[in-house]
Amino acid sequence: MLSHFSYRNNQLHAEKVPLADIAERFGTPCYIYSKAALTAALDEFRQTLADSASGVETLICYAIKANSNLAILNLFSRMGAGFDIVSGGELARALAARADPRKIVFSGAGKRADEIEAALEAGILCFNIESAEELDRINNIAQRLGKRAPVSLRVNPDVDAGTHPYISTGLKENKFGVPVKEAEILYRRAAHLAGIEIKGIDCHIGSQILDPSPFFEALDKILLLADRLAADGILLSHIDLGGGLGICYREDEPAPTVASYLQPILDRLRGRGQKLILEPGRRLVGNAGLLLTKIEILKPGEHKNFAVVDAAMNDLARPALYDAWHDIVPVAPRQEETRNWEIVGPICESGDFLGHERPLALQTGDLLAIRSAGAYGMAMSSNYNTRPRAPEIMVDGAHVHLIRRREELAELYAQEQMLP
Amino acid sequence: MLSHFSYRNNQLHAEKVPLADIAERFGTPCYIYSKAALTAALDEFRQTLADSASGVETLICYAIKANSNLAILNLFSRMGAGFDIVSGGELARALAARADPRKIVFSGAGKRADEIEAALEAGILCFNIESAEELDRINNIAQRLGKRAPVSLRVNPDVDAGTHPYISTGLKENKFGVPVKEAEILYRRAAHLAGIEIKGIDCHIGSQILDPSPFFEALDKILLLADRLAADGILLSHIDLGGGLGICYREDEPAPTVASYLQPILDRLRGRGQKLILEPGRRLVGNAGLLLTKIEILKPGEHKNFAVVDAAMNDLARPALYDAWHDIVPVAPRQEETRNWEIVGPICESGDFLGHERPLALQTGDLLAIRSAGAYGMAMSSNYNTRPRAPEIMVDGAHVHLIRRREELAELYAQEQMLP
Repeated sequence: MLSHFSYRNNQLHAEKVPLADIAERFGTPCYIYSKAALTAALDEFRQTLADSASGVETLICYAIKANSNLAILNLFSRMGAGFDIVSGGELARALAARADPRKIVFSGAGKRADEIEAALEAGILCFNIESAEELDRINNIAQRLGKRAPVSLRVNPDVDAGTHPYISTGLKENKFGVPVKEAEILYRRAAHLAGIEIKGIDCHIGSQILDPSPFFEALDKILLLADRLAADGILLSHIDLGGGLGICYREDEPAPTVASYLQPILDRLRGRGQKLILEPGRRLVGNAGLLLTKIEILKPGEHKNFAVVDAAMNDLARPALYDAWHDIVPVAPRQEETRNWEIVGPICESGDFLGHERPLALQTGDLLAIRSAGAYGMAMSSNYNTRPRAPEIMVDGAHVHLIRRREELAELYAQEQMLP
Repeated sequence: MLSHFSYRNNQLHAEKVPLADIAERFGTPCYIYSKAALTAALDEFRQTLADSASGVETLICYAIKANSNLAILNLFSRMGAGFDIVSGGELARALAARADPRKIVFSGAGKRADEIEAALEAGILCFNIESAEELDRINNIAQRLGKRAPVSLRVNPDVDAGTHPYISTGLKENKFGVPVKEAEILYRRAAHLAGIEIKGIDCHIGSQILDPSPFFEALDKILLLADRLAADGILLSHIDLGGGLGICYREDEPAPTVASYLQPILDRLRGRGQKLILEPGRRLVGNAGLLLTKIEILKPGEHKNFAVVDAAMNDLARPALYDAWHDIVPVAPRQEETRNWEIVGPICESGDFLGHERPLALQTGDLLAIRSAGAYGMAMSSNYNTRPRAPEIMVDGAHVHLIRRREELAELYAQEQMLP
């Protein structure tokens, strides 16, 4: 986890670049990604696939929602990855990043007609359909455009992924997918729809999953369904197992290797002749990024000690939204006694915290790195309190690339109009 | 609460305009504000002040963070209001909306040096100082610029406002303000700083407070402190009681009138010769706005019934972030049997809900209004899932003003750069 961000001469680096240099040049807060870490994360999948010699054709469709910066999408696209999109906006991003549309799957429970049209026009690989009504909608739009829409049905396998309730999606009480029984009926109906071409089956059980066994349970359930469908002459060319493989946020909660997740999946698919699609998001970017911030004010107190930093909940929503834990480390560690600090942002609500009770030796002006912020960091950021969104920087060896500049204040209200 | 948004001919209107017409013209989702409702909310303060004949000079400083659209700021500015800002961005907005800088107070626990400089250059009314370190910082910057910074100390009265922990700010374990004892020491120190001009005292105990008695308790505490300071020759020209007065989100939780909140405050200040500053945010805008959305997909199920709408947690974060309850009503009610619906957005996480178990009669394509969305709605919105932020519309009688247009997809990644 620390390999691409490491200390040299008591200074935290991104690859070969001291983070302090980046702060000096681009200011704080800023998001910093390591190109080598991004590459390594995707390579762990590719290497496992090569090593397994399973013969199972596999397409990795990076889930754009985790981090949608064009530079990251373009990097993964050049490495052969496809994309999992959930909106017309993400389709536009993928195309702007020169993705191959034939490697794009479109997920999401509320696709609008204009989004479906754009995806059909682009010629995507597959729509992951989440409801009976959506099947009809896509069929109608495809027929109107004189096309056949390639589809999978997203099946809800009713498997408990054991994660935060907000990001658990595979239980029967979730809004996602259709139950296995209903899926079977829908597949039979879909087989007769002129605007629909059945391509595969899809499931996605949740996010940040650290025990891979629910994936295998879910896969077994959908393979049983695939076999029943095959007996009826409905042949599926791919099995999409979604995303959700977790990352290591804290050392005492290690994440499974890709091999321990992927090998049992490949074992189950060997010899079936079906392509495997995976939709990792967080796993490819989460630990490849950090949020760099500066301490603005120290406020030691009788009850708590507050370090007010220049990053806030608008930059990184996960602590406030999910009570998520991010490691927070000094860029230049001090050899002084530590005390427990509340690391908080300057936004005027108590929910604006980044970490509680962190034992650190701090001085005003020190830089801190909020680790594992590559996923659902910038992607969820807002302008709350009229704060410009942070820049994003990608480090490649000794090279520093600004891949998104900081917003300027006047841009934040340029579209607003006062009454005459 | 419903007066400016009401049904006529079974159609929900904003003032004289059917919401369906706005959806037709501007699309959904969109935020809609009533100018009359905004005006009435500020007028409730002005009327109470006029009726009380207390002789207490009062300045209402609208807390921009609740809703920062320039049209709203300009409206309140024209009505004589000042502003409570928490960032350099909010200062820029206030000035862009032609606010009088001499009516601006600057709150927040982590003001950066550049923000302090900009506020000093603009000539604001007062800095609400939140820590010893900030006092020194402002003193140094002011001296460097050859100015004296007008300041209050934000005192933490250790009063329990009884609200959501994320928006409760007046307890001793919060990051905001300084304890009464420390404030007394800091005031004595501030009195000798060449860059500081002591103007007043400030406290802010929280947000969405429905029982006004904690305000009175807090005021009593800071008036005692003001009196002790006066005995030492430190005279305060204003008392800033912050914001936090709640609104009615649901009929069974009515909000206090402004009179029941303000009159006991005025009674305590009568004859003291100190100006009262109040910083209402939500109270002025919360019920003056709604979020209009369309039902994309209905997904009735064995366990739950889902209505997937085209608004999501990126548009309105309060349900996901605070588990906040918003009333959700049909724009054109149907005379059919209701069932309980989960009102959810299309974003791919289970936290993307707008309301649970709402008894409604719905059909795909129906419009729904999410009420009381004028505060902390658009202000907290993001581009999560690459969703363009919604437009904002202000209705004035029969007139419809687009006060912020919908973002376009290409704008969302216009600042991003791929690697060569």
